[in-house]
Amino acid sequence: MLINCVAYQHGERLADLAVAQIGTFLSKPDCFVWVALRDPSASELLQMKQAFGLHELAVEDAQHGHQRPKIEEYGDSVFAVMHLVEPERGEFNVGEVNVFVGPNYVLSVRSRSRQHFLGVRERCEREPQLLRQGASFVLYALMDAVVDRYFPIMDQLESELEEIEGQIFAKGAARSNIEGLYELKRKITLLKHAVAPMMEATGKLSGGRGPAVCARSRDYFRDVHDHLARINGSLDTIRDTIGTAIQVNLSMVTIEESEVNKKLAAWAGIFAVATAFAGIWGMNFKVMPELQWDYGYPVALLAIAGTCGALYRHFRRAGWL
Amino acid sequence: MLINCVAYQHGERLADLAVAQIGTFLSKPDCFVWVALRDPSASELLQMKQAFGLHELAVEDAQHGHQRPKIEEYGDSVFAVMHLVEPERGEFNVGEVNVFVGPNYVLSVRSRSRQHFLGVRERCEREPQLLRQGASFVLYALMDAVVDRYFPIMDQLESELEEIEGQIFAKGAARSNIEGLYELKRKITLLKHAVAPMMEATGKLSGGRGPAVCARSRDYFRDVHDHLARINGSLDTIRDTIGTAIQVNLSMVTIEESEVNKKLAAWAGIFAVATAFAGIWGMNFKVMPELQWDYGYPVALLAIAGTCGALYRHFRRAGWL
Amino acid sequence: MLINCVAYQHGERLADLAVAQIGTFLSKPDCFVWVALRDPSASELLQMKQAFGLHELAVEDAQHGHQRPKIEEYGDSVFAVMHLVEPERGEFNVGEVNVFVGPNYVLSVRSRSRQHFLGVRERCEREPQLLRQGASFVLYALMDAVVDRYFPIMDQLESELEEIEGQIFAKGAARSNIEGLYELKRKITLLKHAVAPMMEATGKLSGGRGPAVCARSRDYFRDVHDHLARINGSLDTIRDTIGTAIQVNLSMVTIEESEVNKKLAAWAGIFAVATAFAGIWGMNFKVMPELQWDYGYPVALLAIAGTCGALYRHFRRAGWL
Amino acid sequence: MLINCVAYQHGERLADLAVAQIGTFLSKPDCFVWVALRDPSASELLQMKQAFGLHELAVEDAQHGHQRPKIEEYGDSVFAVMHLVEPERGEFNVGEVNVFVGPNYVLSVRSRSRQHFLGVRERCEREPQLLRQGASFVLYALMDAVVDRYFPIMDQLESELEEIEGQIFAKGAARSNIEGLYELKRKITLLKHAVAPMMEATGKLSGGRGPAVCARSRDYFRDVHDHLARINGSLDTIRDTIGTAIQVNLSMVTIEESEVNKKLAAWAGIFAVATAFAGIWGMNFKVMPELQWDYGYPVALLAIAGTCGALYRHFRRAGWL
Amino acid sequence: MLINCVAYQHGERLADLAVAQIGTFLSKPDCFVWVALRDPSASELLQMKQAFGLHELAVEDAQHGHQRPKIEEYGDSVFAVMHLVEPERGEFNVGEVNVFVGPNYVLSVRSRSRQHFLGVRERCEREPQLLRQGASFVLYALMDAVVDRYFPIMDQLESELEEIEGQIFAKGAARSNIEGLYELKRKITLLKHAVAPMMEATGKLSGGRGPAVCARSRDYFRDVHDHLARINGSLDTIRDTIGTAIQVNLSMVTIEESEVNKKLAAWAGIFAVATAFAGIWGMNFKVMPELQWDYGYPVALLAIAGTCGALYRHFRRAGWL
Repeated sequence: MLINCVAYQHGERLADLAVAQIGTFLSKPDCFVWVALRDPSASELLQMKQAFGLHELAVEDAQHGHQRPKIEEYGDSVFAVMHLVEPERGEFNVGEVNVFVGPNYVLSVRSRSRQHFLGVRERCEREPQLLRQGASFVLYALMDAVVDRYFPIMDQLESELEEIEGQIFAKGAARSNIEGLYELKRKITLLKHAVAPMMEATGKLSGGRGPAVCARSRDYFRDVHDHLARINGSLDTIRDTIGTAIQVNLSMVTIEESEVNKKLAAWAGIFAVATAFAGIWGMNFKVMPELQWDYGYPVALLAIAGTCGALYRHFRRAGWL
Repeated sequence: MLINCVAYQHGERLADLAVAQIGTFLSKPDCFVWVALRDPSASELLQMKQAFGLHELAVEDAQHGHQRPKIEEYGDSVFAVMHLVEPERGEFNVGEVNVFVGPNYVLSVRSRSRQHFLGVRERCEREPQLLRQGASFVLYALMDAVVDRYFPIMDQLESELEEIEGQIFAKGAARSNIEGLYELKRKITLLKHAVAPMMEATGKLSGGRGPAVCARSRDYFRDVHDHLARINGSLDTIRDTIGTAIQVNLSMVTIEESEVNKKLAAWAGIFAVATAFAGIWGMNFKVMPELQWDYGYPVALLAIAGTCGALYRHFRRAGWL
Repeated sequence: MLINCVAYQHGERLADLAVAQIGTFLSKPDCFVWVALRDPSASELLQMKQAFGLHELAVEDAQHGHQRPKIEEYGDSVFAVMHLVEPERGEFNVGEVNVFVGPNYVLSVRSRSRQHFLGVRERCEREPQLLRQGASFVLYALMDAVVDRYFPIMDQLESELEEIEGQIFAKGAARSNIEGLYELKRKITLLKHAVAPMMEATGKLSGGRGPAVCARSRDYFRDVHDHLARINGSLDTIRDTIGTAIQVNLSMVTIEESEVNKKLAAWAGIFAVATAFAGIWGMNFKVMPELQWDYGYPVALLAIAGTCGALYRHFRRAGWL
Repeated sequence: MLINCVAYQHGERLADLAVAQIGTFLSKPDCFVWVALRDPSASELLQMKQAFGLHELAVEDAQHGHQRPKIEEYGDSVFAVMHLVEPERGEFNVGEVNVFVGPNYVLSVRSRSRQHFLGVRERCEREPQLLRQGASFVLYALMDAVVDRYFPIMDQLESELEEIEGQIFAKGAARSNIEGLYELKRKITLLKHAVAPMMEATGKLSGGRGPAVCARSRDYFRDVHDHLARINGSLDTIRDTIGTAIQVNLSMVTIEESEVNKKLAAWAGIFAVATAFAGIWGMNFKVMPELQWDYGYPVALLAIAGTCGALYRHFRRAGWL
Repeated sequence: MLINCVAYQHGERLADLAVAQIGTFLSKPDCFVWVALRDPSASELLQMKQAFGLHELAVEDAQHGHQRPKIEEYGDSVFAVMHLVEPERGEFNVGEVNVFVGPNYVLSVRSRSRQHFLGVRERCEREPQLLRQGASFVLYALMDAVVDRYFPIMDQLESELEEIEGQIFAKGAARSNIEGLYELKRKITLLKHAVAPMMEATGKLSGGRGPAVCARSRDYFRDVHDHLARINGSLDTIRDTIGTAIQVNLSMVTIEESEVNKKLAAWAGIFAVATAFAGIWGMNFKVMPELQWDYGYPVALLAIAGTCGALYRHFRRAGWL
């Protein structure tokens, strides 16, 4: 579906175009066309391919989707793939935005995502002195918008981790902790797939050998790269922390088990002593003088209780009870 | 066994050749010969070696088989080894396809595999404008076909992983989970051996310093490289997830064990109390007044049941039962 | 808040300036202006941006804060971000200092930290022969001060680790050890985030391709880089040691548990034997000759005690008790 | 001990030499001398050092032995160290072969190994068209022979691993599995020490910047490099698999332990119930009506047996028994 | 403390100097001065700084000590830091030697160590043809001496590891093994800190872009680098082995615990049966015919003993006892 098709000159909005008009404006000097598509049909893409002379392989990638983030040069144009990550009922939905950038055009194709980029266009039009940099600035502005939307997701993941960390030394929380950690790991991996390859790709855009079409906005791409590096660093830290937390969780389970074992051992010991004493005085030997004593029974009870009490104190001191 | 031997000119099929005719067509301008062999005998390979002037070491590799995927330059020709992975009764069968590419010939040698490449030839012949790129486009088309066949295998491995993940927090599934994870790891490793070295090799083909014979199809090799990078990334993710899942599985076993231990401790405690009480009233002291009471027995039973019930409630609350 | 605004010429303090005077002094030969801000307002930053012609993106970074440490070139000027780490009630507070360096100015912006750099200015003014190197020497001096403050933090972390290591083989310390190790890991990660990217960045400053404005102080930046490399190496070592210590801790818990289990098994065995004997002689068979013996009871007690004693000795020797 | 000393010209054997004759033949055009030593004495090495003008440090290395595999340039000559690994009574014996290669000589020095290289010389002499490449082809042939002998060792290690893998989910095999895995790891490490540095070194030989003396045989060295890369990849895989297998083994032990625990808990529960019932009917209360019933005893036995049977069924269903 | 101060010309000892004479000899052609200090005072270092024109930062490093090993260029001179590791009562004492090398001087400063380098000077003076290489050869000789002293330490650590490995599958050794492994890890880390950065630094000395002052002895520095690489490889192997051994140790503890658990379960079962039988015949039912039989008691004993014996045999076969 076509969302927008606008021509710009010297950083100023020139006119809204019909698709058929694109050719006319592409040949004007200092002019570029910015088209936005959403979940386009094959025929819409084909139209664009012909209008801008896009490379067959890039168009195929945009059509099939499910690419990893990347930035590829085709002659003097650039093809960028970015992931759009949006939380949806506790899960992450991963959409995609493909951007074709040539010296005098930008074509953005959004797929499987509800995040739109109208705000980006508005912001660009509010800053004509920057938009004068041309198509590469639009690419920057789109990237910046995509990356800015990763930050709240990072924050959410970090607070999920903190919540689990707050429970990690609590008794009886081992099962829910390990489930939470595994789930968090899954989400981290998903975000990492969006961030890491894009970081690598923007690093090339901002370096000395980047594509010519992006040269004018190099400092801006470095800024995007820097944001991605920050997110990537945080992701690595969370990943590492999850690994440690899983180990710590196992330790805690084992420690708790060991404490339960000690308790079990202590009480088993105490009752075993009581039962053994009772068993002995329950034997049927004819000659067992203490059984005949008037105070034999209370004395026996006291003896049993005393021994058990002494054991109890002993285990208490040893930290078993 | 010779499957096919065809000459092409300007991207169009020229003629089916007998092996003896190859020499004639090699010398024609803008012409190349595409030969396909399958599990060839030593003499068939020798024939090809002489017809195309192949390098001794490359022919030896093709003969012995069991090479790791690679792309090597010998003078102005290229020798490529790729793995063919096909599921077979729950296991993976690994075959091999070796491709010799020169300025005016392509020789593909398939070994120990039932996957054929007839479709590749058809597709190439349907697109003469691309086939005009020459031998390197055939190499690309073969690679693309090999790599495309990795995707359904990836999907299968991913659903195997998901199935295990669905069971990972289930009680009593630890043994089958760990067996499944270990088996999955083995398969991942096998596919990794096919993918990772090939990814590295295609990366060189698509870079600036690739062999001259492949220069015309550079963008296409980058596309293959990109697909391999995607698969490789997924393989690494699965590998990493398996590692975590094994740890989580161990944690779950330990957690379950700890729960069993608590149950054991609780019931042992309850019965130990009952037994101790019964033992005490089973002692043979002459003077045990309560034994003489008319309601001694029911009171005793109540006392035992009450104590056990209180213990039961206590353990229940503590989450041990 | 403006802390200081001073002009220097030939390494000597020339005059304290009002902000409005900066422009005048920037144009003087061999002269540079050194301004220090603290938690500046947006308008203060804007003023500086205009006075020194700072790049928009760098100013944005300084405004938003929470950047990772980095050193970026913007034309002939350099923008550096460093973390200030200060212990605060058992936790680490992370502040930031941003430094803008041009051929004839230095602007340092400190945020969210109580560490000031007055001492750095004094030290620089005491060594005019070094300050003559210009703005880059001030950058060095600030970096050196920041890095010097990492050392006592490292020492503190190392003694925390040593304390835990002293307890790691002690009985009953598993829970507090694992908590300590996890907490230490968290702190290490935080310091690592300050140190590692800064080390990488200073490595570029001291290499052959560093920014022109820093060329005169290259040996000094290498010194800072070297200090950071030392800290970074120690951090990696602590991290690695924590990992091993967590594993060792788990082993110790399991070993202790195994020892408790053995004790439990031994005592359970001893009492089970006593109870079984007593139970047998408590049976109500009519004909049980030993029950009628005069010394049956003491003999029985001796038999029970003897068997239990023998078992005790046996377990003792086996190291179970 | 001198094994062989032969001069070659144009790839053909010219003459067997005495050591004193070497100098004469070194100065002949298109001629090279190939000497083989075995466990040489210091004086033999000194003789060779003088005859070929070897570098002092290389000779020292050959004398002392126990070097890691490497290939070093000394001026226009090359010094190569390779490990010879041979199975010996379940262990690996590691010998060494040092090769000095100059424009017109090859000197191979074998130490602490029973593997000889007579076959290499024979093979070389059978292919004069290849031996015409000169000294570097001899180096290749020696390397190829050394590397070929690693393959059967790899196969052996792989079948040892498979044997352990076949037992890894078997009950009661944990102890022997872990011993086998540890032993295998040790052997893998040893072979890795032979393979990995040599792979790195041959990579340099086959690259563009390799030593001049090896330039003519570059494709051949790449072949050796490729074989080493294959072995190295397999070693890494085995290593990784061992790591996983150790973890899986631990999981299996824990799972088995947990099953034993459940069994223990179940039987303990069943007998505790029986004992508690019996204890209650063994109490000495005067008024216990059921004790007077004619069928009290069989009813009691049935009650006990019934309860125990019900428990047994319950545990059976829960998978504890 | 000044140990030595000698001038050399053409590799021959020229004269022992007083510090004041150094200047005179520095200006002589083909002459260099070699000074050795030990734990020098600040004033001694200052004297040297002035005599040789040393760089302020290098002198500061030498003064403060506790640097990581490194080799730094300052103009046409080189500053090297190496660690001296010496075993001392089961621990490692880490000293330092700093070497300043210029075109015509060598200054070695030894700190916190009892290892002296008199032997190095003697060896150098015995080989004037090598010493003719000048100051860089002295640097090599000092490095070689330092590195040679790492080898016996490596041997010691390897035999400590072997001793632990010999115990790793022994019963009851888990606690001492884990303590030994942790201690060994600590020592390895310490030696690694001495070796790894020095290896990296010497790698640069022997490469094409090393400092000019070291160019004449490049092959010799490569030799040192090679020795360090060997030690470093061994350290990595030990480290890896320790990691595996810790895991194996945990497995062994768990296996042993599982065996103890089985024994416990078996004996508990046997005695529980005996006790249950005895309890049943100890019930007070009026009508229990077997109690009246003349041979009831021995038959009961036989029944109990028989059942227990059967259980014992059963557990024995299952490998639990």
